Amino acid sequence: MAKWDPCSRSSAFKQPHWKQIQFTDQKQEFNKRPTKTALRSLSRSISQSSADSFSSACSDSSEEEATPREKSQSSSSSLSDFCIKNIKQAAFGRREIEIAQQEMPALMVLRKRAGGEKPLAGAKVVGCTHITAQTAVLIETLSVLGAQCRWAACNIFSTQNAVAAALAERGTSVFAWRGESEDDFWWCIDQCVAAETWQPNMILDDGGDLTHWIYKKYPSLFRKIRGIVEESVTGIFRLYQLSKAGRLCVPAMNVNDSVTKQKFDNLYCCKESILDGLKRTTDVMFGGKQVVVCGYGEVGKGCCAALKALGTVVHVTEVDPICALQACMDGFRVVKLSEVLRQADMVITCTGNKNVVIREHLDKMKNGCIVCNMGHSSVEIDLESLRTAELRWQRVRPQVDHVIWPDGKRIVLLAEGRLLNLSCSTVPSLVLSITATTQALALIELYSAPEGRYKQDVYLLPKKMDEFVASLHLPTFEAHLTELTEEQAKYLGISKHGPFKPNYYRY
Amino acid sequence: MAKWDPCSRSSAFKQPHWKQIQFTDQKQEFNKRPTKTALRSLSRSISQSSADSFSSACSDSSEEEATPREKSQSSSSSLSDFCIKNIKQAAFGRREIEIAQQEMPALMVLRKRAGGEKPLAGAKVVGCTHITAQTAVLIETLSVLGAQCRWAACNIFSTQNAVAAALAERGTSVFAWRGESEDDFWWCIDQCVAAETWQPNMILDDGGDLTHWIYKKYPSLFRKIRGIVEESVTGIFRLYQLSKAGRLCVPAMNVNDSVTKQKFDNLYCCKESILDGLKRTTDVMFGGKQVVVCGYGEVGKGCCAALKALGTVVHVTEVDPICALQACMDGFRVVKLSEVLRQADMVITCTGNKNVVIREHLDKMKNGCIVCNMGHSSVEIDLESLRTAELRWQRVRPQVDHVIWPDGKRIVLLAEGRLLNLSCSTVPSLVLSITATTQALALIELYSAPEGRYKQDVYLLPKKMDEFVASLHLPTFEAHLTELTEEQAKYLGISKHGPFKPNYYRY
Amino acid sequence: MAKWDPCSRSSAFKQPHWKQIQFTDQKQEFNKRPTKTALRSLSRSISQSSADSFSSACSDSSEEEATPREKSQSSSSSLSDFCIKNIKQAAFGRREIEIAQQEMPALMVLRKRAGGEKPLAGAKVVGCTHITAQTAVLIETLSVLGAQCRWAACNIFSTQNAVAAALAERGTSVFAWRGESEDDFWWCIDQCVAAETWQPNMILDDGGDLTHWIYKKYPSLFRKIRGIVEESVTGIFRLYQLSKAGRLCVPAMNVNDSVTKQKFDNLYCCKESILDGLKRTTDVMFGGKQVVVCGYGEVGKGCCAALKALGTVVHVTEVDPICALQACMDGFRVVKLSEVLRQADMVITCTGNKNVVIREHLDKMKNGCIVCNMGHSSVEIDLESLRTAELRWQRVRPQVDHVIWPDGKRIVLLAEGRLLNLSCSTVPSLVLSITATTQALALIELYSAPEGRYKQDVYLLPKKMDEFVASLHLPTFEAHLTELTEEQAKYLGISKHGPFKPNYYRY
Amino acid sequence: MAKWDPCSRSSAFKQPHWKQIQFTDQKQEFNKRPTKTALRSLSRSISQSSADSFSSACSDSSEEEATPREKSQSSSSSLSDFCIKNIKQAAFGRREIEIAQQEMPALMVLRKRAGGEKPLAGAKVVGCTHITAQTAVLIETLSVLGAQCRWAACNIFSTQNAVAAALAERGTSVFAWRGESEDDFWWCIDQCVAAETWQPNMILDDGGDLTHWIYKKYPSLFRKIRGIVEESVTGIFRLYQLSKAGRLCVPAMNVNDSVTKQKFDNLYCCKESILDGLKRTTDVMFGGKQVVVCGYGEVGKGCCAALKALGTVVHVTEVDPICALQACMDGFRVVKLSEVLRQADMVITCTGNKNVVIREHLDKMKNGCIVCNMGHSSVEIDLESLRTAELRWQRVRPQVDHVIWPDGKRIVLLAEGRLLNLSCSTVPSLVLSITATTQALALIELYSAPEGRYKQDVYLLPKKMDEFVASLHLPTFEAHLTELTEEQAKYLGISKHGPFKPNYYRY
Repeated sequence: MAKWDPCSRSSAFKQPHWKQIQFTDQKQEFNKRPTKTALRSLSRSISQSSADSFSSACSDSSEEEATPREKSQSSSSSLSDFCIKNIKQAAFGRREIEIAQQEMPALMVLRKRAGGEKPLAGAKVVGCTHITAQTAVLIETLSVLGAQCRWAACNIFSTQNAVAAALAERGTSVFAWRGESEDDFWWCIDQCVAAETWQPNMILDDGGDLTHWIYKKYPSLFRKIRGIVEESVTGIFRLYQLSKAGRLCVPAMNVNDSVTKQKFDNLYCCKESILDGLKRTTDVMFGGKQVVVCGYGEVGKGCCAALKALGTVVHVTEVDPICALQACMDGFRVVKLSEVLRQADMVITCTGNKNVVIREHLDKMKNGCIVCNMGHSSVEIDLESLRTAELRWQRVRPQVDHVIWPDGKRIVLLAEGRLLNLSCSTVPSLVLSITATTQALALIELYSAPEGRYKQDVYLLPKKMDEFVASLHLPTFEAHLTELTEEQAKYLGISKHGPFKPNYYRY
Repeated sequence: MAKWDPCSRSSAFKQPHWKQIQFTDQKQEFNKRPTKTALRSLSRSISQSSADSFSSACSDSSEEEATPREKSQSSSSSLSDFCIKNIKQAAFGRREIEIAQQEMPALMVLRKRAGGEKPLAGAKVVGCTHITAQTAVLIETLSVLGAQCRWAACNIFSTQNAVAAALAERGTSVFAWRGESEDDFWWCIDQCVAAETWQPNMILDDGGDLTHWIYKKYPSLFRKIRGIVEESVTGIFRLYQLSKAGRLCVPAMNVNDSVTKQKFDNLYCCKESILDGLKRTTDVMFGGKQVVVCGYGEVGKGCCAALKALGTVVHVTEVDPICALQACMDGFRVVKLSEVLRQADMVITCTGNKNVVIREHLDKMKNGCIVCNMGHSSVEIDLESLRTAELRWQRVRPQVDHVIWPDGKRIVLLAEGRLLNLSCSTVPSLVLSITATTQALALIELYSAPEGRYKQDVYLLPKKMDEFVASLHLPTFEAHLTELTEEQAKYLGISKHGPFKPNYYRY
Repeated sequence: MAKWDPCSRSSAFKQPHWKQIQFTDQKQEFNKRPTKTALRSLSRSISQSSADSFSSACSDSSEEEATPREKSQSSSSSLSDFCIKNIKQAAFGRREIEIAQQEMPALMVLRKRAGGEKPLAGAKVVGCTHITAQTAVLIETLSVLGAQCRWAACNIFSTQNAVAAALAERGTSVFAWRGESEDDFWWCIDQCVAAETWQPNMILDDGGDLTHWIYKKYPSLFRKIRGIVEESVTGIFRLYQLSKAGRLCVPAMNVNDSVTKQKFDNLYCCKESILDGLKRTTDVMFGGKQVVVCGYGEVGKGCCAALKALGTVVHVTEVDPICALQACMDGFRVVKLSEVLRQADMVITCTGNKNVVIREHLDKMKNGCIVCNMGHSSVEIDLESLRTAELRWQRVRPQVDHVIWPDGKRIVLLAEGRLLNLSCSTVPSLVLSITATTQALALIELYSAPEGRYKQDVYLLPKKMDEFVASLHLPTFEAHLTELTEEQAKYLGISKHGPFKPNYYRY
Repeated sequence: MAKWDPCSRSSAFKQPHWKQIQFTDQKQEFNKRPTKTALRSLSRSISQSSADSFSSACSDSSEEEATPREKSQSSSSSLSDFCIKNIKQAAFGRREIEIAQQEMPALMVLRKRAGGEKPLAGAKVVGCTHITAQTAVLIETLSVLGAQCRWAACNIFSTQNAVAAALAERGTSVFAWRGESEDDFWWCIDQCVAAETWQPNMILDDGGDLTHWIYKKYPSLFRKIRGIVEESVTGIFRLYQLSKAGRLCVPAMNVNDSVTKQKFDNLYCCKESILDGLKRTTDVMFGGKQVVVCGYGEVGKGCCAALKALGTVVHVTEVDPICALQACMDGFRVVKLSEVLRQADMVITCTGNKNVVIREHLDKMKNGCIVCNMGHSSVEIDLESLRTAELRWQRVRPQVDHVIWPDGKRIVLLAEGRLLNLSCSTVPSLVLSITATTQALALIELYSAPEGRYKQDVYLLPKKMDEFVASLHLPTFEAHLTELTEEQAKYLGISKHGPFKPNYYRY
C-alpha cells in the first residue's frame, strides 16, 4: 500500500498511518503507482533530524498521559481554539522557531517585502503539513502576510509538540500532536477545516489527505476556495488523476516540480546526505572503497560526485544511454551490477525503480558490503527475498541490520531499504526554506491571480516565481546578481527582470 | 537576432554569412574574413586540429594555380562528376578519413547494423556542410546505407582539399575547395543540386544556404523532397521563421537541440577546451589564479568546473537567480564583475549576451589580465571600445593581442573576442561523431517515417533516437548498459527499450 | 610543552593526565573530566563509535554496584588473574572483537604469516592502552605471535567492559573497567606489571603512564626489558626528554611518526571527519557556505579538500609561506582571519597553535557562525575569553553550545573547542588498524633485533616496516603492487623489496 | 650517453651536444646513473614554449650567415665584450625580457629590497644556463644586486638570440647563440671565464659543464671562488661525486632539492602540463577515457589529480606500498599494468625507472592507445623494442608518431618517449621564477656567508631561505600571511620569522 506514496516522508511513519485512514473505495486508485513523471518528482522535504534532535532535547517522557482531545488548555492570551499536547512547552518551541527563522531568511524577507501590502489579506488558509519549527516559520509568515491559518499535521508521528504549543500560544489554531491515533488524525483535520464556523478559501496540503477530506465531507466549500497548493508527489498524483477525471474543481499548484525545489531536493541535498547517512550509520571510511551507484539521475549524480570527491572508486549502472554517457564523461565506469558485485564495498540504489538489487546480487556480494537506498521508495532493494529462513537478521544499531548468510557472510543493510537520506541523515534548513518559500509564493499567486489566469487544472509555479524563490535565497550566500542593461535585455529579447530562460531550458 | 537562442554557438560567423545571401551587396562580408584567423572561426563541429594537421602535412603550396572550375579531372575509375582542387591528393585524404573513422565508431556501427537493410535506399541526399575528414565519414556512411550523395561546402575556407579528393575518388560528387570565391560558393551548391538531371529528395544542411538556394531557384524540387536536416543555430532560426510564416513546405529536423548534442557541444566540450585554449595561447599557470567567469549556463558550468579543478579561484557573475544559486551550491562566489575586477587574472565570458565586458571594466583590470570569450559570438566583449587612439594593440602571438594603455598596462585579449574554443582549441572527434550520428539518424527518420508522422514543421529528434545516438557511443567507453526487466518497465510504465525519460526531463 | 610537536593530537587530554602523575595533589584533574563529554576526548586512535554502539547495546545500568576490585570472578576455564567489571559480558564482547577483526585484516594476516614461527615467543608484554575491541584484536594478535600479555587501561573512562571481559575469558590478564578512580588506575597498572611474580620484558604504552610507573617503582625491571613501544605524542615527548637527560635505559620505538600512521591520522582521517563532525552536530548544509580554515598543514589540507569538494568557498590562513603557497596553488585564497571574518559561516582551526581564534575575532563574526577545532588541543580557540558575564552559554545539543552576545548574536561552538573529530566524529577502523599493526611490528622489531641494533635511544620504525604496514593494508582495497625486476632495482640502486625511498622523501 | 642528464632539458638538444663535448676520461663517471636520490630530483625548469614562441615570432631566417665568432659587433654604448648572433635584435629581446619581468615579480622585489645594500657588490659571477628571457631577468637582477656577470649557454640549441642581444646591449658579456657547434660551445664558456683578465669568484651552473671546464682548465681559479650554485640533477650528481672523492674545493649549493622548487617542478607543474601536453599533441577528449598512470610520486599525484578532475578513469601502478596506499585513499585503483592494458586509452609513465612499459605491454595495448612519459628520462618506455622491422613508424605531427603493428594497430607515441611536459607543453613562468629566485638567494647566501659556515661540501638551501622564496611569490596571489604573536611563537618554540617547520616536515 505504501507504493503510491513511496517517499514523501519516512515510510516508517506513513505506512501504518495510511493503512489506517484510507477509504476503501480508493484502494484501487492508490494501488496504481504514480506515472513516470510523478515518480521522478520525489519530495524529500521532511527534516528527520530536526524531529529527532528536538525529541531528544525535549523528551516527552509523559507520553502516557491523557489524550490532548480531553485536555482543556488555553494560551496566555486566553485563546483556546487549538488542540495540542501541552501549551506549557510554548517557550521551548518558540526558541526552536527562532532558530529556524535564522535558517529561513527568505521567508523573513517575504515578511518584510510583502508585509506592508498584506497580499494574503482575507485569505483563510487551511493547512496540513508536518508540524516542525520550519513549517511554523511558514505558517507565521502567512499570518504576517495577512492570512488566517488553521493547521493540522499530515503525519501522526512527526509533530514537534513544543512547536505546536508555540504556534498555539501566538494564536494559530493548531490541531496536532505526536502520536495521534487514526481517529485523532481525521478529527484534527476536521477541526481545522471548521467547515461550519470558518470556511477556508485556500488549501495548503502535503500528501493530499486534507484535500481528500474536504472532497469527501465538505465539497461545497470548494465554491469559495481559490486554489490548492500541494507539495508531495502523492498529492500531486492524486490531483492529476482528479484533473484527468474532470473532477478537479479549483486550480491547483504543483510546487514539487519547480526547478529550484527539484535541484535542491535531489542533486544538492543528496550530494551531502549520502555521506552523512553512511557515516552516521556505519562510520565507514570512504577513501579507497569501491562503490556501485545504481542510477545516474539527479540523485545518482549527487551521490557519485560526493563519493568520488571523498576518494571512493565509483561504478555506475544505468538503463538510459544518455545518462550512461553522462556518467562516462564525468569519469565513472558504467557497468552492469553483476560485473562489479564481488568487489563492491557499498551498493547504493537511486533509480526510482523496483528490484534493482535482488537476492541473486546479494548472494554474490562480499562480506561486509553495505547496501542502502537513496531512490524513491523501499522497493529498490528486494527485501522480501532476504526475509527467508536461512538468513539471520541482526539489528546492530538503530537503522542498521546485519543480514547473515549461513556461511557467516554479513550484508550491512541500512534503514531496511528505506530512503537513507530521510532515515539516517537530515534535510538541511536551506532545502526546507526553499520548499516553504515556494509554497508561500504559490499561495500568493493563486490567491491574488486575476480571475481566469488559472482554470481547474494543475499548474507549475510560473518560472518567474521560481526565479524569485532563488533570488530570495541568494543573500544567504552574499551573492550579488548582475542586472541586465536595457540594451542587453533587448538583445536577448527578454525582460530585464526575467524570466530569463525558456521553459525547456535544462539548467 | 540571436535572442531566440542565446546559448548556442556558431551564430557568430553564421550570422554575417546568412545576411549576405539575403543581400547581394555584402560581398565584402566574405572578404572581411580571409585571414587564417577567420578560418579558425568554424562551427563548433569542425575539427580545427584535423584541418591544421592536414594542412601542415599537405601544404597547398600551389594555391595560386588555376581555379578548379577550369580544370578537367577524373577519378581512377573515370568518374568526373565533381569539382575539387586536385584529385591526386586522394590517397592522402583517404588516410585522414581512415583515422577519423577510428574516432567515429558510432557511424561505423551504423554502417554495420543498418547496412544490410539499406534504410536510405532510394534516398538522394544533397548536402552542404564543412568538408572535413569527419564529414567524409558521414557522407560515406550515408552511401553505405543506400543513399546517393552530392555535396558542397558550407564555408569557403574550411574545405580539406585532400578529403574532397578522396571523396571524389570513391565516387561522391563533391563540389568544394578551400578558398572558393563567393561566386564559386553558389556555383558549387548549384552543381550539387543538379536540379535538371538528378533531383534530390533529402536535404542535409548546415547554415541554411543550400535550403535557401533551393527555395530561391528550384522551389518545385520540394515536391519530391521528404525533409530537411539542419544543424546550425542560424539555419534552424530560418526554418522556424519559414514555419511561422507558413512557408515551410517539408518537415525539418532540428538536430542542434537534441540533448546529447547540446551537452557535448557545451558542457563537456567547453570543460576541456577552456583549459586548452588558455594554455595554447598564453601558457598561463592556472594554480592560484583568480578568474571571473561571466555566465553560469552549460558553458559556464563546464569552464568553472575545469578551472576550479586546476586550482584557480573562480568567481561567477550571473543575471539569472536560479543559475546564480546553482553557482553558490557548486562552491563559487557570485559577484558583480566590478567587485572583483581589480584582482582578476582572467575574465571569461560565457553569457550569450552582448557587451558583458565593457571599456569601463577593461579600464579597471589589472596589468596582464587575460580576457577571452567562450560564449556565443564576438559581441560579449565590447571590442569597439578598445579600438581607440589612446590604446595600442600589439599582436604577440597568433590569436593573442596585447592592448596597451597609456600607462603601460597590458590586457591580454585572445582571439579578438571570438570563441576561444573554436579559435584556439579543437573540437574533439567524439563531439563531431555525436553530431554526425545525429544527422544520419535524422535523415533516416525523416526518410523512412510513415506518411503523416511529420508535417510541414520543425521537429526535434525523437527522444528515442537521441538515446540511440548516446547508446552508439557507449562502446567507446566500454560502458555496459543495464536492461530493464519486463517487470521493471511495467512498474515505470515505459517500454523496455525506451524512451526512458519524459520530454521535460532536465538531465 | 606542546611546542615540540604541534601537529599531533591527543596532547590535549594527555597533558593534564601526565601532569597529574607527577604531582600527587592533582586528583581533581581527573574529577574535572567525569562527563560524557570528556569521555569522548580520547586519542585519535579510539573508535568512539564502537564505544557508543557498544554502550548503547550493552548498557551498564548497574554502574553503581560494587567496585571490581572487591569482586571475585573467574573465567569459564577457571582463570582469575584479571580484574574487570563483569566476566558475564564476555560473549557480547567477543562479538564486538570479531566484528573488529574483520576491519583489521592486517593483524589477521600477521597472525597467519608470522604465526607459525612465533616471533614473540618468550616475550612478556605489559601493555597500557585504551581497551576497546580494536586493541583487543591487537592484544590477541600478540598472543598468537607467542607473547604473554598483561594489560591495563590508559584512560579511566574509555574501557569497553564487555571487551575486557572477552579478553579475560580467553586468558588475557586484564585489569581495567570503565569509570576507574585514580587509585584504581594506578592499582590496575601495578597489577599488570606484576613485578614480583611475572616481570615483563617488553612495554607497549600509550601516554607514558605505564613507563612512568615502572621507572618510579620498579626501575630494576629495565634490566630485562628489551624495549618500549610508545604511540602517543605525550609519551614520546617524555621519552625524548629521558633520552636527552641520559636516563632512557632501553631502546624505545616512536610509532607515532611513521609515515603511514601520520598520513592516516591527519590527512586522510581529517578529510572525512571534518564533514562528519560538522554534520552530526549542526546538520549544516555545506553548499555555498564560506569557511575559513586556519592552518594548511596535513589536517588543514584534508579539511580544505573535503570542504571544497562539497561546495563550500574556502579561505585559508597560514603563518608559513611554503604552506601558504601550497594553499594558493590548490586554489584557496590565503587571507588574514580578520579579512574574512564577517562573511564566514564557519571557522575551523587546525594550526597546532594557541589563541588562533580570539575574542576580538569572535566579536566580529556574524550571527550563526560555527566555530570548531581540528587542531591539536583545546587551546586554539580562546575559550576563556568567552566565559565572561555578558555572554550567555546555551547547550543546544550534546557537544553544541550557543554563545550568545548581548545583542542576540549567537556563535555556535562545537565540543567546547576540543578536537571535533574525536568529540563529534569517529576514527575509522582502518586508521586504528594501521596504528595497531605498526605497534605490533615495532614490538617484533625491538624484541627480535640483534643486539646492538638499537641503543638506549628513541627510534622511528624502519622505513621498510612502515612499507610493510602499508602493504598489509593493500588487500583491503584489492590493490595489486607491481614488483621491480632485478634490472630495475639495480637501475634504481635499491633492493627489489624496498625500502623504496630515501628517509627524507616527502610523500 | 644521455642517461646521466636525462631530463634537465629537452634531450633532443642535449643529446647530440653532449656526445660531442664529453671528455673521454669521464665516460665511466657519466655512465653511472645518478643515485636514487638524485633521480627523484628532476629539474624541469626550461620553458620550451618560450623558446618556441620566440623563435616563431622572430624567425632567424638567415641562420646560414657567418658565424658570430667572425662578426664584429658593438652595442650602442660601444661595448663589444660579447659574442652573439645579432645585436640589432636587442629591442625585440628587450620586450621579451620586459614581459618576463612581469611574470617574475619575486626577482623584481629582490631588486628593490636588496638593491640598496648591494649584497653582491664585488661578486664576479660566471654563469652557464639556458639563455632565455627568464634567465635574462635573473642575470640582470644579479647585476642590480651588485654583481658583475659573464654568461654562456648551457645548451647549443636553446639560446634566444634576441634576448642575448638585449643582454649584450645593456652591458652583460654574453657569449651564446642558437646553433653553436661543439667547438663554439666550449669557446663561449672559455670566453666567459676570461681566466686571464677577469677571474670570477662565483659560479652559477646548470648541468655542470662550466664547473667541469674550470676544473679542467683553470683549477687555480678555485682559490678565489667562494661557491658554486648548481641547479640540475646531473650537475648535482657530479658535485656529490666530487665531494665524495674529496675533490670538491669550494662549497656548493644544491638548489634543485629545496621544497618549493621540488613541489613546483613536480606536483604543481605536472598537474597542468599533463593535460596541456596531451591536448596539444593529440587533441584527445579526456572525458570517459581510461588512463593508466605508472608511478604515484609527486609527478604521478599531479597527473592523476588533473586527469581525474577532467573526467578520466585513472588506474595507478606502484611498486612502493606507501605510495600505493596513498593512491587508494585518493580514489584510484592500484593495479598491475598488465591487468588493465587492454582497456587503456592512455598510458603515462612517471616512475623514474626504466623499462616500465615494455614491448610485451605495447603488444597488448588496444588500437589508438596513447603512450607517453612524464618521468625522468626517455628510458621509461622501452623504445628500442619498437624499433624493429615488423613495426612501421609514421610521424603524423611534430612530436607524434604512430607505431603501426602488422595487423594495422596503431600506438600513438608522444615525443619519442622523452618528457612530455618539456617536449610538448611549457614550463610556466611561475616555476621558472621560483627556480631563478632560489638561484639568486643561493648566490647571495654563499657569497655573503661568514667564513666557516660552509665547507667544501654540497648544501641544501637553508629552510629559512626556502620560506623566503615562497614568501616572495605570495603577492602574485594577493595572499596575506598571518604573523605569529610573540606568545604564539613562544608556545611553538620557534622564531616569529621562521623557519616554521622542522627539517623532516613532509609538506
